[in-house]
Amino acid sequence: MAPVMRPFAAARVLTQLQQAGRRSYATSRPSLLAHRARWTPRPTFNQIALRQSVRRQSSEAPKPKPKKKGFPILRWTWRLMYGSALAGVAYVCYGIYEMRNPNDQPEPDAAKKTLVILGTGWGAVSLLKKLDTENYNVIVVSPRNYFLFTPLLPSCTTGTIEHRSIMEPIRNFLRHKKASVKYYEAEATKIDYEKRVVYINDDSEIKGDISSTEVPFDMLVVGVGAENATFGIPGVRENGLFLKEVSDAQRIRKRIMDCVETATFKDQSPDEVKRLLHMVVVGGGPTGVEFAGELQDFFNNDLKKWIPDIKDTFHVTLVEALPNVLPMFSKQLIDYTEKTFKEETITIRTKTMVKNVTEKYIEAEAVGPDGKKQLEKIPYGLLVWATGNALRPVVKDFINQIPAQKDSRRGLAVNEYLVVKGTENVWAIGDCAVANYAPTAQVAAQEGNWLARMFNKMAKTHEIESKLAELSVAQEKAPNKETRDRVFEEIKDLQKRLLRLKQIGPFEYTHNGSLAYIGSEKAVADISWLSGNFATGGTITYFFWRSAYLSMCFSTRNRILVVMDWVKSKTFGRDVSRE
Amino acid sequence: MAPVMRPFAAARVLTQLQQAGRRSYATSRPSLLAHRARWTPRPTFNQIALRQSVRRQSSEAPKPKPKKKGFPILRWTWRLMYGSALAGVAYVCYGIYEMRNPNDQPEPDAAKKTLVILGTGWGAVSLLKKLDTENYNVIVVSPRNYFLFTPLLPSCTTGTIEHRSIMEPIRNFLRHKKASVKYYEAEATKIDYEKRVVYINDDSEIKGDISSTEVPFDMLVVGVGAENATFGIPGVRENGLFLKEVSDAQRIRKRIMDCVETATFKDQSPDEVKRLLHMVVVGGGPTGVEFAGELQDFFNNDLKKWIPDIKDTFHVTLVEALPNVLPMFSKQLIDYTEKTFKEETITIRTKTMVKNVTEKYIEAEAVGPDGKKQLEKIPYGLLVWATGNALRPVVKDFINQIPAQKDSRRGLAVNEYLVVKGTENVWAIGDCAVANYAPTAQVAAQEGNWLARMFNKMAKTHEIESKLAELSVAQEKAPNKETRDRVFEEIKDLQKRLLRLKQIGPFEYTHNGSLAYIGSEKAVADISWLSGNFATGGTITYFFWRSAYLSMCFSTRNRILVVMDWVKSKTFGRDVSRE
Repeated sequence: MAPVMRPFAAARVLTQLQQAGRRSYATSRPSLLAHRARWTPRPTFNQIALRQSVRRQSSEAPKPKPKKKGFPILRWTWRLMYGSALAGVAYVCYGIYEMRNPNDQPEPDAAKKTLVILGTGWGAVSLLKKLDTENYNVIVVSPRNYFLFTPLLPSCTTGTIEHRSIMEPIRNFLRHKKASVKYYEAEATKIDYEKRVVYINDDSEIKGDISSTEVPFDMLVVGVGAENATFGIPGVRENGLFLKEVSDAQRIRKRIMDCVETATFKDQSPDEVKRLLHMVVVGGGPTGVEFAGELQDFFNNDLKKWIPDIKDTFHVTLVEALPNVLPMFSKQLIDYTEKTFKEETITIRTKTMVKNVTEKYIEAEAVGPDGKKQLEKIPYGLLVWATGNALRPVVKDFINQIPAQKDSRRGLAVNEYLVVKGTENVWAIGDCAVANYAPTAQVAAQEGNWLARMFNKMAKTHEIESKLAELSVAQEKAPNKETRDRVFEEIKDLQKRLLRLKQIGPFEYTHNGSLAYIGSEKAVADISWLSGNFATGGTITYFFWRSAYLSMCFSTRNRILVVMDWVKSKTFGRDVSRE
Repeated sequence: MAPVMRPFAAARVLTQLQQAGRRSYATSRPSLLAHRARWTPRPTFNQIALRQSVRRQSSEAPKPKPKKKGFPILRWTWRLMYGSALAGVAYVCYGIYEMRNPNDQPEPDAAKKTLVILGTGWGAVSLLKKLDTENYNVIVVSPRNYFLFTPLLPSCTTGTIEHRSIMEPIRNFLRHKKASVKYYEAEATKIDYEKRVVYINDDSEIKGDISSTEVPFDMLVVGVGAENATFGIPGVRENGLFLKEVSDAQRIRKRIMDCVETATFKDQSPDEVKRLLHMVVVGGGPTGVEFAGELQDFFNNDLKKWIPDIKDTFHVTLVEALPNVLPMFSKQLIDYTEKTFKEETITIRTKTMVKNVTEKYIEAEAVGPDGKKQLEKIPYGLLVWATGNALRPVVKDFINQIPAQKDSRRGLAVNEYLVVKGTENVWAIGDCAVANYAPTAQVAAQEGNWLARMFNKMAKTHEIESKLAELSVAQEKAPNKETRDRVFEEIKDLQKRLLRLKQIGPFEYTHNGSLAYIGSEKAVADISWLSGNFATGGTITYFFWRSAYLSMCFSTRNRILVVMDWVKSKTFGRDVSRE
């Protein structure tokens, strides 16, 4: 009797236990029981055991709740998170693998038209990204063998980001195009429109037997950008630093530390220390504002801590000729920026025109308290000139060649198809083109994209046209009516396709908004949202700023490197070595 | 009846279970239950429940095995791993926190002796690391405001490591010393031994009103290192690049890409391409060998892939005047290195003396097949000069001031206590000192350490001596015998301590071994093991090389950054942008 009764009782005991609302884990026992009880003729126990073993598995979810219902939800959210994380990692890894292992590229067919692209900036690279290179013999000429993600350049001046994290080698990028693309690291010195050639010159340290030659073109895209304008103010080029290229950022980084080290030199007079630690930024555009913010951050987070001697004398001043900074932003954001700068103890001097720059001070004209304009000497240690674009010599020279461009001052005048006015096979994009848009990366990128699409369509059009020519011949030669009709049919729908292809609208710029970092982990954003506009500033905007720029980065590689740098500078602080 | 019967039954059931030899925790139950069952049936369930909840925790080991024995081992190894991992992370985090948050430093007391240290290299920094700065007024003078971990510098030339990862700002380091230390970023131009002053000069871009001044010293440590020697061979300084400083590594990195880009310039002649892609390294020491290896790696892993045009023309040659490379290594490792280089298609040209360097070729004297010496022209694109140390001007000048140094050629002659011969308060360490040891980082570091220990002892000695002086006065003034005796006792054991302190042995160098990376993930190592010597080469040695250098890195920060860089370059490859 006993043996038979035992399992029974056991079962009941365990049911009780469960009812006691304890962890379903306790149920693991009966399965063993069941095992013990296997010799008994009662199948019910195996069933119980089965049910219980199922529960046991289910109980592996973290912090199981007494409610049975809770389980599947928990389990599924868990699995979902898990799965998506894995998928994400796999995707990134695949991307890196792809990047590391380019396929072989066919040499471009010489019969095709030669498309020469000058520059490796926003315009040129966006164009190259979308261009089907197998349709043309593509040749890229630029003195810079990498693409630079300029929006994050101000962060490089203080080491928040290392410059290599925002550079993408043009070689790697071109190596991934379908058909191979020639690249020459050289400066385009002259465009000869009559001869259809570009003269290029290798002006780097190492020169070969041939260091300047000519590149003939059938189609030419000018995307050489602009150079820094000093508005003819004496001393700017000699004493100031610009913020356009990687080398500029490096120079600024060195200069900041040089000023600090010189200020802490033995027996330096207080006035001189004050001068050396006065950092002046000219230009209230996004670049100037972001740099001023980054610089102040650098001081607050790092310099102050490691070199306490300078903590009372370091000062940043932002000079702007217009009545306010960030002109492209809405009023409230301008006020917010000015408020934040005040809190950060950055001085903003608007309506101040720099007239002359010497080695140790700036002469600026500002409206004095008496309302009269007066000239003032501002001593400085570091001067960063972050304003103004000027024509590059090659563009200036090109303008002079073309009568239709005689009135062009700010750049090559282009029509709504980005064709340089007065030419038929030359296009201009980016800062060297004037199409009534602000000279921003956004505009250049959109122009590049649009042009790529157009070139791809042109190639297709060309193809169809030649086919049509063949067909019309075939039609004439056709022996009998039905062949002729058949060919005619073909011709008709080819022409339809052609028509469709030729319906390409002019370039139109769509403004996505403006972003700027203003220091102490705050940013301002003016975003075009659907029809309306949407302005915001603060720390949340700062995270938006970061994620926006991150998503805009050129490659996964860049994205990962930038994030690593952010973590690095957050964890270890910025580097105060002078290099 | 049932409720009463139930626990009984349960008890029986569980006894059975336990007999069945299932899960260990079952063991505790029967006694309990039996015991409980004896008098009160009701509370049993809570009790059981309690026991179970206890047991549940104890039984959280993964994949429980039927064997009882298996349990604790598994569980404990697991916990151990877990625990140690957590401890490690915590340790690192604490280290970083410490690094980021220095304490306030007391200003050094002017009454103390002024100790001036020239340099921020291996010697000077090792000295500073161990020195109790509160014993002296410490002043550090160096044109380089960071410590550079030179052994990994060759890796920076190709971007395997970013130079900032092996730099440690001297400011951060000094900020963590007990008493504050003055640092001047300046070049020591002259040591005036008579006047006991050092003349320093700020030769950086930015100069203050005062850019050169004098620093008086009571004690002086010269750790300025050496500069590159060209052995009077014409053209080396003009056309070659050295590999000593960060700036050198950056210059080389740029130059490599410059050569490649110039070689792929339009219409370059085959011979010229061959010349431009011929990378010549002069000097078969560890630096030269490691650089050659790194360069070949760079080509094999990256350049070849991204710029296929150069895959047949890129070539690395290592030139050495002696009969073999790596003279400090054992014969078998030299052979191994030469074999590996052959596999890597790096040409080694031993017994080849460079006589003259022009812009495009090297004139070298080598023994020809006919056994006669003959002059040969070697065209090159990049020339890296990785051999020879020369005196710095300041050291040369100092030598001329001291008669006892008139025979010093290779550096300041020092005695076994590292005191510069002919002086009493000037010490020299590192490459600028001659103590019959090779001019290596290892020697410099050990000298610095030893000197720090000695200075610390000297400070203590001085303290005790002054105390003794006081006591002897007290003894004389003592009113009665017992006081006199008491004082006398004090004097005695102070003197004992003094004796012990003064028993400081001379500096002795202990060679820990030599390491060198030879490319394609292989390294060679000659390690002094206990009494014997232990030579090894290959891929495992490469990992040893890495871990050894990692452990030698200056700070946790450096270690983490270097590892990150290794991962980065392994994952994404090296950067082929010219910057």
